Amino acid sequence: MTNGSDVADVGLLSPQWAGTPVAAATSDAAIVAAMLDVEVALAYAWQELGFAPDGTGALIARVVDSLDIDVASLAARSRSGGNPIIPLVKDLRAAVAAEDAAAAVWVHRGATSQDIHDSALMLVAQRALVAARSDLASVVDSLSSLADSHRATLMVSRTLTQHGVPSTFGLKAAGWLAGVAHASVALDRAVAELPLQWGGAGGTLASYSVIGETGTGLAVSDAVADRLGLARSIPWQTQRSAVVQLASALAQVGGALGKIAVDVLVMVRPEFGELGEPSAAGRGGSSAMPQKQNPVLSVLIHSAARQAPGLAAEVQRSAVAVDERPDGAWHAEWQSIRELLRLVGGAAGLAAELTSGLRVFPTAMLRNLGMSGSLVVSERLMLEYGPLVGRDRLQELVTAQAVDPAVDLRALLRAEPSLANVSDQSLADSLDPAQYVGDNDLIIDRAIESARSALRKEQ
Amino acid sequence: MTNGSDVADVGLLSPQWAGTPVAAATSDAAIVAAMLDVEVALAYAWQELGFAPDGTGALIARVVDSLDIDVASLAARSRSGGNPIIPLVKDLRAAVAAEDAAAAVWVHRGATSQDIHDSALMLVAQRALVAARSDLASVVDSLSSLADSHRATLMVSRTLTQHGVPSTFGLKAAGWLAGVAHASVALDRAVAELPLQWGGAGGTLASYSVIGETGTGLAVSDAVADRLGLARSIPWQTQRSAVVQLASALAQVGGALGKIAVDVLVMVRPEFGELGEPSAAGRGGSSAMPQKQNPVLSVLIHSAARQAPGLAAEVQRSAVAVDERPDGAWHAEWQSIRELLRLVGGAAGLAAELTSGLRVFPTAMLRNLGMSGSLVVSERLMLEYGPLVGRDRLQELVTAQAVDPAVDLRALLRAEPSLANVSDQSLADSLDPAQYVGDNDLIIDRAIESARSALRKEQ
Amino acid sequence: MTNGSDVADVGLLSPQWAGTPVAAATSDAAIVAAMLDVEVALAYAWQELGFAPDGTGALIARVVDSLDIDVASLAARSRSGGNPIIPLVKDLRAAVAAEDAAAAVWVHRGATSQDIHDSALMLVAQRALVAARSDLASVVDSLSSLADSHRATLMVSRTLTQHGVPSTFGLKAAGWLAGVAHASVALDRAVAELPLQWGGAGGTLASYSVIGETGTGLAVSDAVADRLGLARSIPWQTQRSAVVQLASALAQVGGALGKIAVDVLVMVRPEFGELGEPSAAGRGGSSAMPQKQNPVLSVLIHSAARQAPGLAAEVQRSAVAVDERPDGAWHAEWQSIRELLRLVGGAAGLAAELTSGLRVFPTAMLRNLGMSGSLVVSERLMLEYGPLVGRDRLQELVTAQAVDPAVDLRALLRAEPSLANVSDQSLADSLDPAQYVGDNDLIIDRAIESARSALRKEQ
Amino acid sequence: MTNGSDVADVGLLSPQWAGTPVAAATSDAAIVAAMLDVEVALAYAWQELGFAPDGTGALIARVVDSLDIDVASLAARSRSGGNPIIPLVKDLRAAVAAEDAAAAVWVHRGATSQDIHDSALMLVAQRALVAARSDLASVVDSLSSLADSHRATLMVSRTLTQHGVPSTFGLKAAGWLAGVAHASVALDRAVAELPLQWGGAGGTLASYSVIGETGTGLAVSDAVADRLGLARSIPWQTQRSAVVQLASALAQVGGALGKIAVDVLVMVRPEFGELGEPSAAGRGGSSAMPQKQNPVLSVLIHSAARQAPGLAAEVQRSAVAVDERPDGAWHAEWQSIRELLRLVGGAAGLAAELTSGLRVFPTAMLRNLGMSGSLVVSERLMLEYGPLVGRDRLQELVTAQAVDPAVDLRALLRAEPSLANVSDQSLADSLDPAQYVGDNDLIIDRAIESARSALRKEQ
Repeated sequence: MTNGSDVADVGLLSPQWAGTPVAAATSDAAIVAAMLDVEVALAYAWQELGFAPDGTGALIARVVDSLDIDVASLAARSRSGGNPIIPLVKDLRAAVAAEDAAAAVWVHRGATSQDIHDSALMLVAQRALVAARSDLASVVDSLSSLADSHRATLMVSRTLTQHGVPSTFGLKAAGWLAGVAHASVALDRAVAELPLQWGGAGGTLASYSVIGETGTGLAVSDAVADRLGLARSIPWQTQRSAVVQLASALAQVGGALGKIAVDVLVMVRPEFGELGEPSAAGRGGSSAMPQKQNPVLSVLIHSAARQAPGLAAEVQRSAVAVDERPDGAWHAEWQSIRELLRLVGGAAGLAAELTSGLRVFPTAMLRNLGMSGSLVVSERLMLEYGPLVGRDRLQELVTAQAVDPAVDLRALLRAEPSLANVSDQSLADSLDPAQYVGDNDLIIDRAIESARSALRKEQ
Repeated sequence: MTNGSDVADVGLLSPQWAGTPVAAATSDAAIVAAMLDVEVALAYAWQELGFAPDGTGALIARVVDSLDIDVASLAARSRSGGNPIIPLVKDLRAAVAAEDAAAAVWVHRGATSQDIHDSALMLVAQRALVAARSDLASVVDSLSSLADSHRATLMVSRTLTQHGVPSTFGLKAAGWLAGVAHASVALDRAVAELPLQWGGAGGTLASYSVIGETGTGLAVSDAVADRLGLARSIPWQTQRSAVVQLASALAQVGGALGKIAVDVLVMVRPEFGELGEPSAAGRGGSSAMPQKQNPVLSVLIHSAARQAPGLAAEVQRSAVAVDERPDGAWHAEWQSIRELLRLVGGAAGLAAELTSGLRVFPTAMLRNLGMSGSLVVSERLMLEYGPLVGRDRLQELVTAQAVDPAVDLRALLRAEPSLANVSDQSLADSLDPAQYVGDNDLIIDRAIESARSALRKEQ
Repeated sequence: MTNGSDVADVGLLSPQWAGTPVAAATSDAAIVAAMLDVEVALAYAWQELGFAPDGTGALIARVVDSLDIDVASLAARSRSGGNPIIPLVKDLRAAVAAEDAAAAVWVHRGATSQDIHDSALMLVAQRALVAARSDLASVVDSLSSLADSHRATLMVSRTLTQHGVPSTFGLKAAGWLAGVAHASVALDRAVAELPLQWGGAGGTLASYSVIGETGTGLAVSDAVADRLGLARSIPWQTQRSAVVQLASALAQVGGALGKIAVDVLVMVRPEFGELGEPSAAGRGGSSAMPQKQNPVLSVLIHSAARQAPGLAAEVQRSAVAVDERPDGAWHAEWQSIRELLRLVGGAAGLAAELTSGLRVFPTAMLRNLGMSGSLVVSERLMLEYGPLVGRDRLQELVTAQAVDPAVDLRALLRAEPSLANVSDQSLADSLDPAQYVGDNDLIIDRAIESARSALRKEQ
Repeated sequence: MTNGSDVADVGLLSPQWAGTPVAAATSDAAIVAAMLDVEVALAYAWQELGFAPDGTGALIARVVDSLDIDVASLAARSRSGGNPIIPLVKDLRAAVAAEDAAAAVWVHRGATSQDIHDSALMLVAQRALVAARSDLASVVDSLSSLADSHRATLMVSRTLTQHGVPSTFGLKAAGWLAGVAHASVALDRAVAELPLQWGGAGGTLASYSVIGETGTGLAVSDAVADRLGLARSIPWQTQRSAVVQLASALAQVGGALGKIAVDVLVMVRPEFGELGEPSAAGRGGSSAMPQKQNPVLSVLIHSAARQAPGLAAEVQRSAVAVDERPDGAWHAEWQSIRELLRLVGGAAGLAAELTSGLRVFPTAMLRNLGMSGSLVVSERLMLEYGPLVGRDRLQELVTAQAVDPAVDLRALLRAEPSLANVSDQSLADSLDPAQYVGDNDLIIDRAIESARSALRKEQ
């Protein structure tokens, strides 16, 4: 009834990332490809260090290119050993031997399953995040523009769901910007530090010292790292700092994007009407109600952001890894880190689309701000006129309008004898929300400048 | 380089379940199949209630059978609407219309995406757990046998990693049994109560009352539930009790199986040598060290058990679902519940294999018990002889042996004047670990009987 | 600067439960009291079984009553042993000895720290939940009333933040009711099954068989359980089913209450104005903005519901407990289970207050429903008139109003030649939201009846 | 029966931190003190900027010093507003007014509850981590020493619970060192960046611009930050990067310490006997078994490490914070971040004690290594002699010894014709575990140097 393997997942339950670049970059096939890339790099390292004959690297690379791996069968064969490297290396070695029996000895030479597995996942992370980081840069650009261009677009701030003091949409965008910029810096740092994992069977690199001499292990490790573009490192089979740092950064990105999504999801509600998701043909339709335009981008970003912390925690938990290869913690890390890459990578793409095309409705923002009447400046009134009118009396007047919006607070204030010396203009200014946004512009400037310099420094 | 779709997952990072029945039962294809089953059941319901012409159900069932769905393309088309039902129904309707234009109106008639999606996942859960529940029954059988047959197999109890009082391996197996039996009952209950979700666009079933009359919605809902073997229910789009109950039960099963795994993982350590995983050709080998026999079954069960609580928490969190379809919580639930089904289902299969073939080494258990010499009965000595010898003096003697195992505690006690009236036989009995296992047999009996009756009651 | 101990927590960061009954019932002092209750019950058991002299139980109970425990000092003394039982028993034994040297031997006789610790926590859970369960019963009553009395209070259903079909506030309350009733049943079951934990040093109850004979351990265990009102059980030091079941039920209750809170938190937004929290002098004020009335009850319930799943997961995780007392998992469970009791217990009290005094504003609900004009019945129009007008043409008309609310959809439909035979009354009925709520009343009835019978059965 | 408040927690269920410096630094009283410190700093800022009269700061500081706060009553009064600032400010203002009515106006002037609350928690974090960071430095020192001094202490590496190749205890300590050093750097960075949170009612700092002029808000904010030693920042009420970064770093520290603990917990098992926790009078005793010496330090570190990721995830989750003050996420963050500070802070202290006094038993390590006989060098044999003997034949010989340890592998190899040219010395070298530790020394050197330079750079 369906085509494709019965056991394959193609993202049906994950609209957050199905069909996006991160899906391809983190698929089972992509992981196998990365594992083979590590094996090829190892062959080149042996050759560069003068152990393997010239041409070994290229030969193995060529065999890898022509290798026909059935990933589903590989996965099933992984169960007996607990990871896919053993059957994969077996297949690779046979294929190389078929070409050149002598070269086969250099396949996986000196290495252990975990070296290939860990390093391949680092490679997959690095590759999978290329698109995400570019998407985040685009989000930063879009938010900088929104913050700058909407610095005078009045809206009400909201605390504990209720109206607060006046604010601007530019300031909200500036806040989003600060969050995404900070998270991007954390992610860039984590990606830049992604290390090769290389330890041999027990973390001593002992096999290399027999094939070569003391120091050969680290020399091979450094050569493999350099070729793959990963950071040089000492063995870290059960020291998972780098993975923890990556997972934490991804969770932070998820949180920063999720914050945008939940704000949008309030502001697109029909009762608010302050924002609209970018229009796109066919997106957001309902199977039952033709008039619906669902905020699908934000819903999917939000659902990704909800899941990220739990997955990151799973990775952090796996850092408590006993021995030199743990009895369960390592295996629990793999799927969590991949799912995290996918969800956050998918969310970054959605956020780039969302922020670049976000529709802003200043009129609705102003209308909603107006709902609270002069109440949104009650804090200011209390500061300016409280000492003259008396706090209790002023509270009474403000409450009168809170109870009945039809009450004209300006008239009530005007009638207060203690405010006789306050000019009409002063009173009007005090009641004008647009004149009560404090350091709005300075904060927006600081946020834009700070995002710019943080990201510049990181590059 | 690899065959199969570049974006398909086939379980490469999930040796816990790759290639097992639960993999096929929870694949994207299986979920699409369940969605179509729900659509077919709806067509039959319309027919049974006299709305749709005779033959409608069978016709749509036939079209579904011959439908050729490209799941990857379906997943990609899901992104714009946030779920796969919209494109799936479109395809199905077209295929039916191609056969019989009039019948196409009964496709998805009255329903909304979430009804199909939720109900399909309930169906998938029910089907995916058939194998798991059978595996759990087999685990219960194996553990009952182990508990019974090893009631006299002495081993040391261990608390905070240190040796405690004497115990038996039968008692350990009885504890495992109690945990698995309790969890199985919870899972059986959750599965028996898996409900159809059926609410229409907003939870009122309003469309049905226009096609039929008041009450038609619930009548259709009940008919669909009966046909699919799911429990009848009122709409629960944002009342996720049933999913929460399922997730909690799965986490409990994971915990009960994980407990077995961590005990085995200690006892198979070479320094212990008390247990061995079942021998199996090729399983547990190492790519670097030929002598290694890794406890792969327990490692994989353990890694599954580690991940289950985080996934269950994600599902519980999704119960805090705003409105009549939430803005992210629902989408976050799907992948978590599937992964939970897979990990726990996979673990159940591994546990059935582990417990049925577990190799028990009584000699090693006895040797390790002996390491602590008479210290394992020091509690008894304190109770029996403390009042005669004095607690401080007795502690001194016991400590002497703790410091130097060569010390002969029996001789020291024999030399104590205050124990002159204690017979040699009494002293020997007091120092015999086999005579200090308390209610071992009674507890084992209670555990076996209680597991048996709990599971019987449930069926 | 502050009075009270410098290291005491009194709930400053936990407004969810500070100052409520659950705070007192779960305090350090309450836990120590429960530990001493278990010790007293043990003394009585020894006496009832004919081992200890008459009067032993009463004597130890009397000493316990007059004991002056400095809990802070006890906590500090706990660190060296990892739990507070060792110093507590030392103090108790000395105090009893001061009264009657012979009686002191019956203090903690045969028991081990974990027996007292686990059983005391079960007792604390049972006691702490008395108020919560009564609060939940009150929530069920309030929601039943709201569901029944607001069955005709029209409001719009909302899916993915957008307007769906018409619904009623009674139906929303019925959904809340179903969730709370289901969770209450799960909680009642977990509480009813809370077991005594009694295993002695290694789970064999061996010490009892030396003091008495084979079977004495289980006899003592059963007697202690009966006296404390806990369920009889076999030892479960590292079989944590009962704790897992409790934690899962608490998380489910948290989810059911959190669902109410998030709905209220949308509906009290000024832009909605559909609900108001109960008025209460002084509650919900802002330190900066005098006009604010914050929905504090819902905010606190929501914040409790957010934390519950993570804590429950921690408890589930602790079920993977190695050996006969684990090397970390047990200690990680204590604080998680207490915090869960507090958050959920506090939330239940807040929910009772919220639901009993919830202010419902039908006019605002009607106004918001009206925002979408005839669009809320577009599904019905499509069903009734789609076949006559043609789906595409009808979609066009509906979209016209979606784009410009000023468009009069009724007039457009009236002008359609294909609807010439449809009476004005029929058209009016079709466009009337109140006539498009489907099985609203039947569902409400089922929910109320089902909640009533579920809770009745449980009692 | 107990003294102290009935509702106070003093750490009874938290032996991880009860009675340690972090307990006092994070108590409710300490948090109130930090809140008052922020209020005092605000008064000084107003004075420094020329708004408040000279002496205002000192006056308010003096009143704060003499203030008598009943924290329990404050906590109870917090419930109505959802946080303790409102009643606290009320009390403070009254106390200042009692001294100097005019000065009272400068209390909390311009500020909002969240500014004080967030900033106080940052201050508490900074203070609470002083001891922890010093403890971590001490751990780094101890581990550097252990790594260096045990570089020749042979032990077996362990993978998936089984014996791997030879390694050294120095290398294990070097791995621990790398983990702790990396985590310390992350923590130092997070602490150095802990920012003041200052935004006023809605994040615009508007009140300040009325009291002063545009820019006054940021000027006050910067002055308060400088005085408190927190980083300057723009408002971040719902941009929680800094808290997320702190929580992630704490989780990473927990993981690095937990890794040490789980290794120790294996190696102190009687069957291993390779390590012993530091001896300390009274610590680790059992209430039932006098001979027990429990590894309490490691158990408590492990239990803390287990809980950290879940708490960190809660904090990350709270970053998805709607509006300008969220409707539950903020309140859910408080207790999680405090508990995280306590658990990780407590664990750091325990780890300092553990690593500085860890008892290492090289003889036992050698004995356990010897258990596997020549099998631990089978990888080497395969590399060196596999090409000569043939892989299958060699595997056969190695397996013979794996099955029966009494088999003399050296003799078997000696008897192989194909090894006739291998000298006895070569064969002996190949079979000597001490000569198969690869780059052990180089890796240890790199780890020590890298920890040193990483920590130096950070300071």
